[in-house]
Formats: sequence, C-alpha cells, structure tokens
Amino acid sequence: MNYKVIVNVLGRILLLEAILMCFPIIIDLIYGESNWHYFLIPMGCLLAISIPIIVLLKPKDMNMYAREGFVITALAWVIVSIVGAVPFCISGQIPSFIDAFFESVSGFTTTGASILQDVEALSHSMLFWRSFSHWIGGMGILVFVLALIPNQEGGSMHILRAESTGPNVGKIVSKMKFTARILYAIYAVLTLACFIFLVAGKMPVFDAICHAVGTAGTGGFGIYNSSIGYYNSTYFEMVIAVFMFLFGINFNVYYLILIGKFAEVVKMEELRTYFIIVILTTIMIALNIMHLYDGFGESLRYSFFQVATIISTTGYSTTNFDAWPTFAKIVLFILMIIGSSAGSTAGGFKISRMLILSKSSITDMRKMLHPRQVIKTKLDGDILSEDTIRNTKIYLVAYVGIIVVSLLLISIEGYGGFETNLSAVIACFNNIGPGFELVGPICNYSGYSAFSKIVLSLDMLAGRLEIFPMLLLFTPTTWRKN
Amino acid sequence: MNYKVIVNVLGRILLLEAILMCFPIIIDLIYGESNWHYFLIPMGCLLAISIPIIVLLKPKDMNMYAREGFVITALAWVIVSIVGAVPFCISGQIPSFIDAFFESVSGFTTTGASILQDVEALSHSMLFWRSFSHWIGGMGILVFVLALIPNQEGGSMHILRAESTGPNVGKIVSKMKFTARILYAIYAVLTLACFIFLVAGKMPVFDAICHAVGTAGTGGFGIYNSSIGYYNSTYFEMVIAVFMFLFGINFNVYYLILIGKFAEVVKMEELRTYFIIVILTTIMIALNIMHLYDGFGESLRYSFFQVATIISTTGYSTTNFDAWPTFAKIVLFILMIIGSSAGSTAGGFKISRMLILSKSSITDMRKMLHPRQVIKTKLDGDILSEDTIRNTKIYLVAYVGIIVVSLLLISIEGYGGFETNLSAVIACFNNIGPGFELVGPICNYSGYSAFSKIVLSLDMLAGRLEIFPMLLLFTPTTWRKN
Repeated sequence: MNYKVIVNVLGRILLLEAILMCFPIIIDLIYGESNWHYFLIPMGCLLAISIPIIVLLKPKDMNMYAREGFVITALAWVIVSIVGAVPFCISGQIPSFIDAFFESVSGFTTTGASILQDVEALSHSMLFWRSFSHWIGGMGILVFVLALIPNQEGGSMHILRAESTGPNVGKIVSKMKFTARILYAIYAVLTLACFIFLVAGKMPVFDAICHAVGTAGTGGFGIYNSSIGYYNSTYFEMVIAVFMFLFGINFNVYYLILIGKFAEVVKMEELRTYFIIVILTTIMIALNIMHLYDGFGESLRYSFFQVATIISTTGYSTTNFDAWPTFAKIVLFILMIIGSSAGSTAGGFKISRMLILSKSSITDMRKMLHPRQVIKTKLDGDILSEDTIRNTKIYLVAYVGIIVVSLLLISIEGYGGFETNLSAVIACFNNIGPGFELVGPICNYSGYSAFSKIVLSLDMLAGRLEIFPMLLLFTPTTWRKN
Repeated sequence: MNYKVIVNVLGRILLLEAILMCFPIIIDLIYGESNWHYFLIPMGCLLAISIPIIVLLKPKDMNMYAREGFVITALAWVIVSIVGAVPFCISGQIPSFIDAFFESVSGFTTTGASILQDVEALSHSMLFWRSFSHWIGGMGILVFVLALIPNQEGGSMHILRAESTGPNVGKIVSKMKFTARILYAIYAVLTLACFIFLVAGKMPVFDAICHAVGTAGTGGFGIYNSSIGYYNSTYFEMVIAVFMFLFGINFNVYYLILIGKFAEVVKMEELRTYFIIVILTTIMIALNIMHLYDGFGESLRYSFFQVATIISTTGYSTTNFDAWPTFAKIVLFILMIIGSSAGSTAGGFKISRMLILSKSSITDMRKMLHPRQVIKTKLDGDILSEDTIRNTKIYLVAYVGIIVVSLLLISIEGYGGFETNLSAVIACFNNIGPGFELVGPICNYSGYSAFSKIVLSLDMLAGRLEIFPMLLLFTPTTWRKN
C-alpha cells in the first residue's frame, strides 16, 4: 500500500473542501445572518492541515493500484462528510453531531434524506451548504481533484473507477484529466441551464440556485418543508422533473451528442431502456392514482414528477406519494432500486446492471438448455466480457447482502415497522431520500436512534461509492502490508 | 420433443392420483360423513383416462432430455393440482373452483396457504386430503412414480433433477429407481416416527395422521383454526418443531448415517450452517420477544417453534407472530427466503444456494483484487464447477424477477398494502403459507381476487419446482419442433 500517495491526495481533497466553503460564507455575507464564522473556523483548520500535507508529504511516485484507488475514495468521502457536518453542529442549527453527520453524508452522497423537522428554520448559508454538497458529491469529489491536479495520470483511472457510477467506466478521451474536465464542463452547463429555466419562471435567485444544484446532483434536499410542492407550480415542477430526468442520463451521451456521434447514442440500450421505463411507469402510476386527482392530466403531472424524482434518485416531492395505492408505491419501490444510468449523477442499482444481469441470465438459460451451443451476451452490439458480467453478479450479491444486514441492524431499536425500515434502507442505500411510512415524504429520519443513523449513513456512502470502496475499508486484508 | 413419452408418464401420474384417492374414501367411510362419492367420481374419471393412455400410447423409446423432463414435471404438477381441487369443489365445501385450485396447489406444493376462513367446517375426508397432499408433494409426485416404474432409466435423471430441491442432485445409488425408493423409505419412516411421538402424547389418531403428514411434507395446513396453538401443549409443539427441523435436512444425510458414513455428514457445510442459523435466530428472536411472554423459557418455546416452522417452510403456527416486534418479523422474513436444505422436502432459496453464492462472490471479489491469482470456490471440501455456480446465479436472478413481477400483479387490485402483498408473494413462492398483516397467521388469502389467487398459485408451483420447469412451460421455444 502506497500510504504517502493516499495521504497526499487526501490533503488535496481537504484543501478543495476549504475552498468550497467560501461559497456559503459569501451567501451569509449577502444575507447578513452572521453565520460566516461557522464556516471560517473549519475552513481555517482545513487549510492549516492540508497545505503542510501537500507541500511536505510529496510521495516519490504517484502510482496507484486498484486497492489504493478504493481506499482513497472511501476515506475521502468519510472525511469530507465529517468536515461538512461541522458548520451545522457548531452553529447549533443541528446540535447533535450524529445528526449533523447524517445530514452531511446525505448531502454529499446526493441522498437528500434529512433528520430536520423544520428545514425552513435553517439560515441561508446552511441551506445553501446542504444543497451545494449535492452538487459537489454528484459528479464526484475526487474526479474534481483529478481535473485540477497537473500531469498525474498514474493510477487516477482507479479513482475514477471507484467514484463513478455503473458497471463500466469509459474514458471519454485518452487522458483522464481531460475526461474529468469534460464531465465537469457538461455538468456545469446543464446546471446553469436548469438555473436559467427556474429564474425565467420567476423563482427567487437563491431558491433557483439551491434547486438547480440539488437537481444536478440528483440530491433532493428541499429548502421548504413541503419541498417543491411549496410553489404549487406546474412550470417549476416540469422544469425540475425534466432536468432530474436529464441528470439521470449517462454523461457520455451528452459528449457524444456534442461531437456529433448520434449513431452511437442511438445504439445505447441503457438510454433506450431508461426512456421506456420512465414512459411506461409514468402511465401506469398515472392510471393507478387517477381517482385521487382532477382528471388524467393532473395525475400525469404528479406521476411524471414522482417517477423522475425517484428513478433519478433525487427525492424532491410535490405530493405525499406515501398515501398512493399499493400498486403505485410498489412501482416506485422498484424504481428506487433500479435507479438511473451508469455514468450519471444518480444512484441505485443502475439500468445497465439490470440489462447485463437479465441478458446474461437469458444467455445462461439458453446455455443450460443447449449445452453445446456457443452463445455470447451482447450490450450495445458489443460482446460483454466475462469480467464485466462476473463483477455485476458480485455487485448484486453484495447489494442484497447490505440491504439485509442494514435492515436487521436498524430494526433492533424497534422504532419503525417493516415498510418504514425497508424503505429507509432502500432510500438511503440508493441515495434517494424519502421512503414510505415514517420516513415518507412528509416525515423525516429524526426518529431513529444514533446507532441506526450511523448505519444509514454508511449505507448512503456504500450506495454512492457502489459498495466496494466502503466494503474494502472494513476488510482487514486491505490494510495488510504486501 | 418426445411427446409420446410425456403423455405416457402423465398417464401414470393420473393413475397414481386415482389410487391415492382411496385413502380419503377410507377416512370418510370410517367417520360416516357420506363424502366418499366426491372422491370416487374424479377417481373413476382418472382411471378411465389414464389406463388407456398407459396401455395404448406406449412410446418406442422412453428416452428423455432435460427439456422433456422439465415439461413433464411442470405439466404433472399443474394437472395433479387441478384434479386434486375437484373433491373440494364438487362437495361444495370450497364452492369456487379458483379457491379450490388455490387450496389444492397450496397442498401439493407443501405451501399451506389457505383461503378457508373456517378450517374446522371441513369434513374429515377433506381435511385429510388437504394434509395428505402435502405428503404426496413433499418428496415429489414424479419421484414416487419413478420408484414404481420398472426398468426405466432413460432420462429419469432429468425428472429427478426437475422435481428435487436444491442446486445439485446427487444420486444416492447408481440406479435412479433405487435412489427414489431409498428416499421414499426414509420419508415414510420419519413420518411414522412423528406420528408415533404425537400419539404417544395422546393426540387423537386422526389429528396425529394429519399433522405427521403435514410436518413431513413441510406443508403446514392445520386442521384447527388456531393451528397447533389449539392444543396449547409444549410437548406437541416441541415434537412438531423438532420434526419440522428434521424434514428440513437433506435426506442424503439420513442415508449416509444409515450406511455409517459419519465423516461425510460432518463435512457437509449446509448441514452445519442450518444448525447455526436455527440456533442463532432462535436466540435472537427469543430475546427480542421476551417482554411479550412469561420469561425467557416461554419466549424460547415460541421462538424455536416459529423458527423451525418458517425455515422449514412449513407454516404451522402457535401464536400470532405478526404481532411480534419488527426485528423478529424481519428475521422471520429472511428465514422465509433462505428456506432449508437442498434435497429436503422444504422450499425457499435453500441454504446451499446461499453458501454457493456467498462463497463464489468472495472468490470473485478476491479475483477482482488479485487478478493474477488462481482461486477456486469450494463447498464441502470439493471445488464447485463453473456450471453449478452459474446456474445458482441464474436462479437468484429468476427468483428476484418472479417476486417483483408477482408483487406488481397482485397489487393491481389494491387489496393489500406493501407488507401484506410482499409477504404473500414470499410466503407462497417459498411454500411457507402464512405471511404478515392481512395474510398473517390469524388471517388467510380469501380476500384476494381470483386473478391474484391464480398468480399466487403459479408462484407456489414455481417455488416448489424451483422455477425453471414452470418458466419453460411458458416459453414458446420449448414447444418449437427441433
């Protein structure tokens, strides 16, 4: 294990977080709420720690292997979340550190699950910091650092692999650094577009900023207790729903469109499946909830918003979908698990993994029936490697295992019933936010014990980093000298 | 496809069912309830159809491939269940044919899920037929026929494979026929032992017969509305709990003990894991429910019975476990899914499949981290073949897929909530019987629509036959001439 490179990269991450804390300070100064020192104190500490690390602890070689990549990623996310919790805690706006940590993890992992009973009581700087953490976490903290570090190619692929979503990581261009920059450029432009559309509809600028970054990161922290339902505006709902949908698409698609490779976009099965799932489930739910609303048009409006917010694992809400009929709730439950596309800012199991699993299972069933035939599994017209298929299957097993263990752990205290606890685990692990019943859209996670909140925080981290980095962090062999 | 052999074997199955209908007729004559003709009529029809088929439709060769084996098994189970429903229906004791079919499928698949609101209203012959169907289905209808057919080795392995439980079917002895006979002999002796223990505790003979066959098949149809709770007897509960536990063990274990190969028994990881799971979960639940009962002893009594009845997928009950705390319910939920051992009469995903999945996932994770090492997955000290691992993974995907689709289908009507519907699907698919909430131990399945009852019936069949035979029955390519 190359410990020096781990510490050096972590130092850069801390420096980045210190710089990012300038933004809530600016917001605070604009609103004159005198909360700026709650950000300045951790910022100062971060600078005092990170700069000496970066300057003094220069590793001889910056080479990393998969193990280092995973460990750096996992540690970086835990540390960034802990530091991100400090302003909430020392300002007294979230007095308990466990609660502040939960809220911070929920922000960076783009989950949007909250322990706050009254969001509107927070100051503007805190509201902004919550939403902004979605934006930072959405594309990845380390990917951002990669985009900035000069001339470091050695092993940065492993970091991108550990932090990006989906079963396969494709470099867009041959240099990692440029790939990271292109991804961040697309991300920023789309965020800006969302902001402009919201402001054009006369949403206050502060609200539009918070909602644009929350939508971009597919996070879902609202700034009002009734989330997007506060505005009761079809225009805002549709803008946010469409952008949530767009941020659930693989960012490679946007790059391919930019460079004019439309044929490759059309070939992408994950994209097609995503469209089909969204259209089908929107109609299914709209029909199922029609009796609750004024006609098919209105039920379609609620249904599309809810499908977009859940499949993109954002978690904004416009209505209490916990009160919908069982069929609609089960469709939403399934969407929670599926999630969106690989290479997007969304969480969940990912559509491409679903495709790989179902296609390879069909191949395997055909092999079982016709043992002598040679049958290959294809995705987007290419033959899938045995490695990809194998890793996807490991992922499924680990995914199910984590849900079961977490469910047991948070049930020990006896707070929620089966549906509450299962939806809490699914909603946190897939980085959605609201679940059903006691953690439904009009409730929150404050009722759980500190122990359960830590379990759910780890679930959020495991979900955002797609399990393996977090799992390796707790595996003794990772730390063995070799 | 060798259609002649399919029809011929199905004819033999029908003949067998006709013969088995003698038993409820005898019971009816003993109790003088004048229900015997409800069995004699279908019996006569079966004889009139089956004997000409067997005599006239003799196929030139009895050879079968995997496809024929699967198709025969699936068709046999559907037909036997339909015929088994006739007495319930024509006697008017279960007037709706869909209800009678549900009850019959539930019997043969050893599920024990009932649509009856008052079990005690049934006549003795019907009660016996319900419980007896557990015994017939437990070890397998076709395995029984195999044990009787003279000199037919060609392809009968495929039938045993399709009908037996677990990822791997080991022939005990080289000849299939003798394997089937040995299995049935062990089954009969253990059933008799259970009966003797019950009668020794002064359980009425009729009750003891019904409960012994229901325990042996790990079925769970009670003959009282409060199931085993009716007796409120620690002795009966412990006898039944221990036998449920014993019938959840791979029958090969009993054969190995009989021929003195203890070393091989000790080597079996599934057996060890089964013991560990039962002990651990019994203690966990007992601690969790202690405040509801008089001390740890009594909570241990309820906990052990409940763990044994759920993990063996039997479904008898002694108390309303739906009212237990969430933690205990979630442990039971997990046990419902795991089920017992391969090669037992129990349902569920099977412990051996869990072991294969977790072990091969650990292997795969190690491969991911150390790509150049050669690592093999072992079970019981032997290297697992890639085929076995692959098939187990297909099984997991199909298993999850069926649960999701069934859950959606039975939710359309809007009868049950999420917990009710999920537990209904899990309880039927894993052949357990009672679930939670509206299908909990003090409730039943009568509230569902005819459509949902058919979906749940197919789930029971798919669960009992471990998915693939039922899946192939609905696959067009199965029926393509080739």
